[in-house]
Amino acid sequence: MPQRLNAAEPDFEARFRDLLGAKREASADVEATVRDIVAAVRHDGDAALIAYTERFDQLSLTPGTLRVGEAEIEAAHAATAPETLEALTLAHRRIASHHERQRPRDDRYEDAIGAVLGSRWTAVESVGLYVPGGAASYPSSVLMNAVPAKVAGVERIAMVVPAMRGALNPLVLAAARIAGVDEIYRVGGAQAIAALAYGTATIAPVAKIVGPGNAYVASAKRQVFGTVGIDMIAGPSEVLVIADADNDPDWIAADLLAQAEHDRSAQSILLTDSPAFADAVEAAVERQLARLSRAETARASWDEFGATIVVSDLLREAPPLADRLAAEHLEIATADPEALFGRIRNAGAVFLGRHTPEVIGDYVGGSNHVLPTARSARFSSGLSVLDFVKRTSILQLSAGALRALGPAAIELAHVEGLDAHARSVAVRLNL
Amino acid sequence: MPQRLNAAEPDFEARFRDLLGAKREASADVEATVRDIVAAVRHDGDAALIAYTERFDQLSLTPGTLRVGEAEIEAAHAATAPETLEALTLAHRRIASHHERQRPRDDRYEDAIGAVLGSRWTAVESVGLYVPGGAASYPSSVLMNAVPAKVAGVERIAMVVPAMRGALNPLVLAAARIAGVDEIYRVGGAQAIAALAYGTATIAPVAKIVGPGNAYVASAKRQVFGTVGIDMIAGPSEVLVIADADNDPDWIAADLLAQAEHDRSAQSILLTDSPAFADAVEAAVERQLARLSRAETARASWDEFGATIVVSDLLREAPPLADRLAAEHLEIATADPEALFGRIRNAGAVFLGRHTPEVIGDYVGGSNHVLPTARSARFSSGLSVLDFVKRTSILQLSAGALRALGPAAIELAHVEGLDAHARSVAVRLNL
Repeated sequence: MPQRLNAAEPDFEARFRDLLGAKREASADVEATVRDIVAAVRHDGDAALIAYTERFDQLSLTPGTLRVGEAEIEAAHAATAPETLEALTLAHRRIASHHERQRPRDDRYEDAIGAVLGSRWTAVESVGLYVPGGAASYPSSVLMNAVPAKVAGVERIAMVVPAMRGALNPLVLAAARIAGVDEIYRVGGAQAIAALAYGTATIAPVAKIVGPGNAYVASAKRQVFGTVGIDMIAGPSEVLVIADADNDPDWIAADLLAQAEHDRSAQSILLTDSPAFADAVEAAVERQLARLSRAETARASWDEFGATIVVSDLLREAPPLADRLAAEHLEIATADPEALFGRIRNAGAVFLGRHTPEVIGDYVGGSNHVLPTARSARFSSGLSVLDFVKRTSILQLSAGALRALGPAAIELAHVEGLDAHARSVAVRLNL
Repeated sequence: MPQRLNAAEPDFEARFRDLLGAKREASADVEATVRDIVAAVRHDGDAALIAYTERFDQLSLTPGTLRVGEAEIEAAHAATAPETLEALTLAHRRIASHHERQRPRDDRYEDAIGAVLGSRWTAVESVGLYVPGGAASYPSSVLMNAVPAKVAGVERIAMVVPAMRGALNPLVLAAARIAGVDEIYRVGGAQAIAALAYGTATIAPVAKIVGPGNAYVASAKRQVFGTVGIDMIAGPSEVLVIADADNDPDWIAADLLAQAEHDRSAQSILLTDSPAFADAVEAAVERQLARLSRAETARASWDEFGATIVVSDLLREAPPLADRLAAEHLEIATADPEALFGRIRNAGAVFLGRHTPEVIGDYVGGSNHVLPTARSARFSSGLSVLDFVKRTSILQLSAGALRALGPAAIELAHVEGLDAHARSVAVRLNL
């Protein structure tokens, strides 16, 4: 059973702090291993990449078979059931259309003294997309990572996906085709990250790498950061559901379990103003668990990291708790969800009202499902077009504007002890 | 003397690659030391912070003297020369006014099927600002880091600055007062980063830490990343000046030296279409070097990392080279700088025309001087208001919209093997 916290009890603050501080993921110490792999691929290129793939994925490749051919991608697409293709296409269309609105606008203006200032946004030239193998090889994630890059104008998306004993998930290939991924390579792990960062004879280097992966992939991304850009390092998924007693307990229980089934380290928290409703949801979770294919995973997550929190006044007490939890996913299932949302600041994504299960956002809502975990919504945001563009700031002075601003720049350069700075302005003003 | 590269020579590509790959900074291996410091401050709070400050900064503090008092800040401000205060105030006003335009807009809209989607931006609650001690303790950097946070709406900015033997740069305190910094602590190094990330009895924890620092500070920032957000890890500064022969060699030489005087690891590169102009600039650099207070630093940087690159056609040959260099600062000193800028994609900041020395951007232009170094302008941007806000994505479905989207979500959940995901939608549709 998950733990029950009640805000009215004297030990609440201590227990809430424990909930916040609970470490849900053991961090494997793979740094040294990964360092060797990265160095080998950087030095030996394709040869090292192929050797590691043989060793870790039991797959023999040559430079000629590293890349997944057009025919194989086409065949995977053609073999996909029509209803699946239709769902993927709907998801793609909605994700693209929503992300189109995220394109930042250039800005250029002249101020009163004749200085032109501005910002110009351009797309990152090339992006590497990591897709995990095995059970966590999700076609939806291919769309969520590739579409914002495409919308941003990235010219080249190179995808890597490990193929254990040669097996690739055909749905991942189909999703890549729908999303317009340009190149696919059947490699994974730290070796694939190193290949994307430094390039090999077969795989041209990229400027930024995105996508989820295991501890080796995460460590490799940290190590190549600087040489290339990386996205956030994602932790286990989590949901906070704020629900009043007017909800159907079965609906809310289903939402909590949808999160819990992801991973034993996932976390599902219910925050309500009704102890009876909390009881009813817990009972519904038990009933539903019996019928789930991933019951063992979901139960482990729910029992170890699940929680129900009872407060007496949702509008007053829920917002500060929600802000401290800073959940990746926040569901607000009340009659007036805006009232609560208006008072909550930290959440990766919010799902408002009784008819918006978080799962819609995982697939077809149009918003992105790559979101900040582990309380990082306090300072970071979900994946968007902004992750695939960068800004050049612009300054242009007329001779007159330089005369107006120059003396202040010279003064500050002098007090900072930077003579050459001062001179670079003074020489133009004959000072 | 800096090296001279000529695009017409057969070894040009190899030499240009060497220039790109040159490692300008030795990365000190301080990780283990920093790990101990961070752990001690996390565990022992103020006591550890005070002990490290005694040891590293030769300064004895108590919990009561960690924080710089209002009177001390006020006195520093009052003791600042009027012309310096005026220059700082002008810089502050221009930085604030430019950054106001960077505030992202919320977006909320209903699509054709009745799904509401959107993005809401909110400020990061609290920010830690690291300011280096000693010679690199720049008041201008206080403004550049604090103002975007203030404009974003950050409620609390806590600044840390090491005070070797008790000495603080009064201009840094004055700049902090002008920028509206809320708290100042006289601590630095990895111990100050740990205090900001985990909090102590005296220093409340922050959600994000920004600001430049030495290898210990950079390593500490990497280590606490995840617990808090961090800004980019800045490397040595660099400038690429694209200049035709119609420039005054003295002006361009001054610009190259303004960059070189920062740091022995700084890099100044001239790209021109005239070997004679390159000669003239090099000669001017030599003349000016003789008169600089930081001549030794500037010469070391210029001799070891400086370069002049000669091409035959600026418009055709400069853009691809500039994109590969992806310079932090790009000056385009030609008659038609827009023509070149329109073809260049990677640069942290651009300074257009003959009257826009990069130094103006360091101080009073209004744009930010915290910019991506070491070729990271290929995938990242300078500091802006966006670094101090985060986005919550919004989804709200009507019952009808859920009916329209639900079946596709259920289909994708099924093919991904996530039963509870499918159920969370199906239970609401009585499927």
